[in-house]
Amino acid sequence: MSQYRVLIDANDEKGLVHKVSSIFYSYDLNILSNSEFVDRQSNKFFMRSVVEGNVDNTELFKALREVLPEHSGIKIVKPEKKNIIIMATKEIHALGDILIRHEAGELEANIVAVISNYDNLESFVKKFDIPYITISHQRLERQEHESKIIEAVQSYKEVDFIVLAKYMRILTPRFVETFENKIINIHHSFLPAFIGANPYKQAYDRGVKIIGATAHFVNNNLDEGPIIAQETIHVTHAYSWKDMQRAGRDVEKVVLSKALKLALEDRIFTYANRTVIF
Amino acid sequence: MSQYRVLIDANDEKGLVHKVSSIFYSYDLNILSNSEFVDRQSNKFFMRSVVEGNVDNTELFKALREVLPEHSGIKIVKPEKKNIIIMATKEIHALGDILIRHEAGELEANIVAVISNYDNLESFVKKFDIPYITISHQRLERQEHESKIIEAVQSYKEVDFIVLAKYMRILTPRFVETFENKIINIHHSFLPAFIGANPYKQAYDRGVKIIGATAHFVNNNLDEGPIIAQETIHVTHAYSWKDMQRAGRDVEKVVLSKALKLALEDRIFTYANRTVIF
Amino acid sequence: MSQYRVLIDANDEKGLVHKVSSIFYSYDLNILSNSEFVDRQSNKFFMRSVVEGNVDNTELFKALREVLPEHSGIKIVKPEKKNIIIMATKEIHALGDILIRHEAGELEANIVAVISNYDNLESFVKKFDIPYITISHQRLERQEHESKIIEAVQSYKEVDFIVLAKYMRILTPRFVETFENKIINIHHSFLPAFIGANPYKQAYDRGVKIIGATAHFVNNNLDEGPIIAQETIHVTHAYSWKDMQRAGRDVEKVVLSKALKLALEDRIFTYANRTVIF
Amino acid sequence: MSQYRVLIDANDEKGLVHKVSSIFYSYDLNILSNSEFVDRQSNKFFMRSVVEGNVDNTELFKALREVLPEHSGIKIVKPEKKNIIIMATKEIHALGDILIRHEAGELEANIVAVISNYDNLESFVKKFDIPYITISHQRLERQEHESKIIEAVQSYKEVDFIVLAKYMRILTPRFVETFENKIINIHHSFLPAFIGANPYKQAYDRGVKIIGATAHFVNNNLDEGPIIAQETIHVTHAYSWKDMQRAGRDVEKVVLSKALKLALEDRIFTYANRTVIF
Repeated sequence: MSQYRVLIDANDEKGLVHKVSSIFYSYDLNILSNSEFVDRQSNKFFMRSVVEGNVDNTELFKALREVLPEHSGIKIVKPEKKNIIIMATKEIHALGDILIRHEAGELEANIVAVISNYDNLESFVKKFDIPYITISHQRLERQEHESKIIEAVQSYKEVDFIVLAKYMRILTPRFVETFENKIINIHHSFLPAFIGANPYKQAYDRGVKIIGATAHFVNNNLDEGPIIAQETIHVTHAYSWKDMQRAGRDVEKVVLSKALKLALEDRIFTYANRTVIF
Repeated sequence: MSQYRVLIDANDEKGLVHKVSSIFYSYDLNILSNSEFVDRQSNKFFMRSVVEGNVDNTELFKALREVLPEHSGIKIVKPEKKNIIIMATKEIHALGDILIRHEAGELEANIVAVISNYDNLESFVKKFDIPYITISHQRLERQEHESKIIEAVQSYKEVDFIVLAKYMRILTPRFVETFENKIINIHHSFLPAFIGANPYKQAYDRGVKIIGATAHFVNNNLDEGPIIAQETIHVTHAYSWKDMQRAGRDVEKVVLSKALKLALEDRIFTYANRTVIF
Repeated sequence: MSQYRVLIDANDEKGLVHKVSSIFYSYDLNILSNSEFVDRQSNKFFMRSVVEGNVDNTELFKALREVLPEHSGIKIVKPEKKNIIIMATKEIHALGDILIRHEAGELEANIVAVISNYDNLESFVKKFDIPYITISHQRLERQEHESKIIEAVQSYKEVDFIVLAKYMRILTPRFVETFENKIINIHHSFLPAFIGANPYKQAYDRGVKIIGATAHFVNNNLDEGPIIAQETIHVTHAYSWKDMQRAGRDVEKVVLSKALKLALEDRIFTYANRTVIF
Repeated sequence: MSQYRVLIDANDEKGLVHKVSSIFYSYDLNILSNSEFVDRQSNKFFMRSVVEGNVDNTELFKALREVLPEHSGIKIVKPEKKNIIIMATKEIHALGDILIRHEAGELEANIVAVISNYDNLESFVKKFDIPYITISHQRLERQEHESKIIEAVQSYKEVDFIVLAKYMRILTPRFVETFENKIINIHHSFLPAFIGANPYKQAYDRGVKIIGATAHFVNNNLDEGPIIAQETIHVTHAYSWKDMQRAGRDVEKVVLSKALKLALEDRIFTYANRTVIF
């Protein structure tokens, strides 16, 4: 008996749940969990089922394809470890949190490498027997620098996600397109507040009483990709922006790890610059 | 076209979603929203669907009964206003919050009466043109007092829920049984911490850094019925227990109103002293 | 024995706490609570003390004036009810929450009137025996409309705060200057995200996972005055913007009432477009 | 110029702030931050000042001793790294979080050793060049086992805090007394709910909608020492107790690290089984 995660998105029409569940039934698949959502505004149907049984992937796919509306998205995956690459700069907290969870067996992931534009974190990462690749941006055009990173990433076959764990350089559209829907970033603010550089300084200057962090997929508009997870904490007048930064780190790491976990468990749909999360 | 809320609980078996959705399909009912949950530990299946179409209630019920396992629970309700009675003692905040929401048209409810063992809130409640019934407990045995309340409640036909909005007297098993699964209480602590009298005092004495409130159905064991909603807030050493009480009121009223809303929208299943909430 | 709240802000220098507390000591005043904060960046010192004893206000003021740096702010107030005017439009929740708290004796305030540009809330407010003044904006220039409101406010002597409880019209600089540092607004978003009109719609379009509300003093730049209090709640993909609006109301009312309470208890300093809150 | 943290607790009387601040002033010490609290119920005064200047510790102590009431507590410490020992069993998350923060230079602490009753975490801890001492409890009486741990701890001179990072064995009164006020524990529930073994299982059985974690000093009554920090998160009916356990880990580690930081920065007073935290 195997488990399968079946993810479907389609234009909504009457009977979709019926049609899909009929097929599960006909293949003698037991539904372990099932989530649906219809976005009335865009008339979009989303469904994620975890089923158990014995079935040929391709056959199930074909059967679903037959009953679902044209242009529907269908994804059938087994719960297996995905390959991820983590990109960082100099800060340890978000990266460290992922490495500890990996060590604890908590993540459905192989960390194939950590890539950074500095070597500061090398000795730390090597403790965990994970390859650390320093690709300095110094004396390089942005394009050149990114080409080297792309090359490094592509030297590993099948990288499912690139996790930006406080990678502090802006990515070009070329990079983003190369790994479309695969790049997860943690932004150190409650987006869309404080887009851009030094959000804690911005937050301090505005005198906010709450700060936050946002994990999102990266698209071509900086800090504007589909949001996966957000979290906030209270601050007071007594916080300098450095204090906010320090306090914010705890939120950043928890939110990024949460988003990564959702991605690894195939729980995220994206559409219209938003996410559906089951 | 009408809407129907269909609530099903059953012993889990393969194909339940398929069977139910087939029936919806055969009656030409469109699924507006659909939630399922299987409790693996007790092998219980729960499903709440909101469907749209034209169908005879009794016919749909029969059709579902036929395909579902024996002893399944099936409930089909139209989204209509339910009748509620609020019981209070002297405090205004939780009661007031419900009255304001009622005034704003936010609740699927008719408030048929407010019953209290004091007359303190009478002039306040009457502003809202809602009957206020004072049933003093003074010089009465507990049984006698409750008999009068039961009588008052039963003078209204079809009371769907009794909401204890800081009603500060203990109810006897007889009362609870008379209105089984219909009584919603707000307890001014994060249950199961601080069961019983003066929980804020208890919380203060224990030196907690968080206080909370718990809305729950009332069963025969005081403060031990199925929990519907909980919320917490931070406190500091600077809070006296009176300060905790004051701060706690904001949590109490929000949690009770939230629980009431869930109940009115038929979103709650109870089983094994717990709730499933869709 | 009386209580006095003493609020001091000054350019920081060595010995301020010593100097102030010496004066309290010399007047035989007992310190009930004491809070200080120094903003290192701007070198500003803030202190709020609640003291108990018998002293002449003017004398204490003079004594403090003598030992404090030039241009220091000194405020000595007794804990007495302040006069407030509430402005609203059509929504009841934020207004209602304040009225209930007022009814419960929870606020150090007299509500002298409610002013609205519609009469929708009139019958509700009148239940509480509070004057309701409808000043319609229809067929009036903005200036004209505001002149009428200013006139209405000024017909009451000594209005300490004007509370915008979802007053949905933009105020001109003239209005804001007339009641400088006296206007408290609730903005239905986590500022500075979603400035301007329909923030819930904006939040929905951005696909956020958290929404919030912000209470702030109003200055000439719309939604950019000093923030007093903020709160956030989680939302999911299943929330339409109407759902966000509904859920947001609970946050709005709690945050506005909290900010109002802080203001009434003289707990807020403002400087450099920020607040210090003790 | 050095910094000093001055912590004072005393029976309250008029003029304490005046007396202490006069002494700071006379020694030409600049107050960087200052917090006071008076517990009216027990008439206790607490004060924590961070001052800057040049002063002899013993002289300052004497000067304070002279003006303060008899039996006052006076503590003067420089902000220096404290020595801590971490005790763990098999779980990595809380331990790992502290090690990462230590690596990031975020903690005012030297981790002198990790002691465990299992060797599971040895290879992990050794990556960080921190001594790992396995003291198995197998085939040992509880007293014998603890004697070995006490011996190990005492082989290091001046251990300021012992941090129980999910150390899953009950400590005897002898152990607790040996390291009085030095042992910080993380309990995996919102105390005082779910005291004792397997709190997540207890929480699941009770059907709670919120779980939490509590960091506290350990005293002789299991899980009943003074609470330092607490945090909660929402759960739903869909959480098994294993899911609660998994989700709870994120809260546990954050709360424990927060409590440790407060302790290292000398921000905690304890009295009457409660804490005052500045």
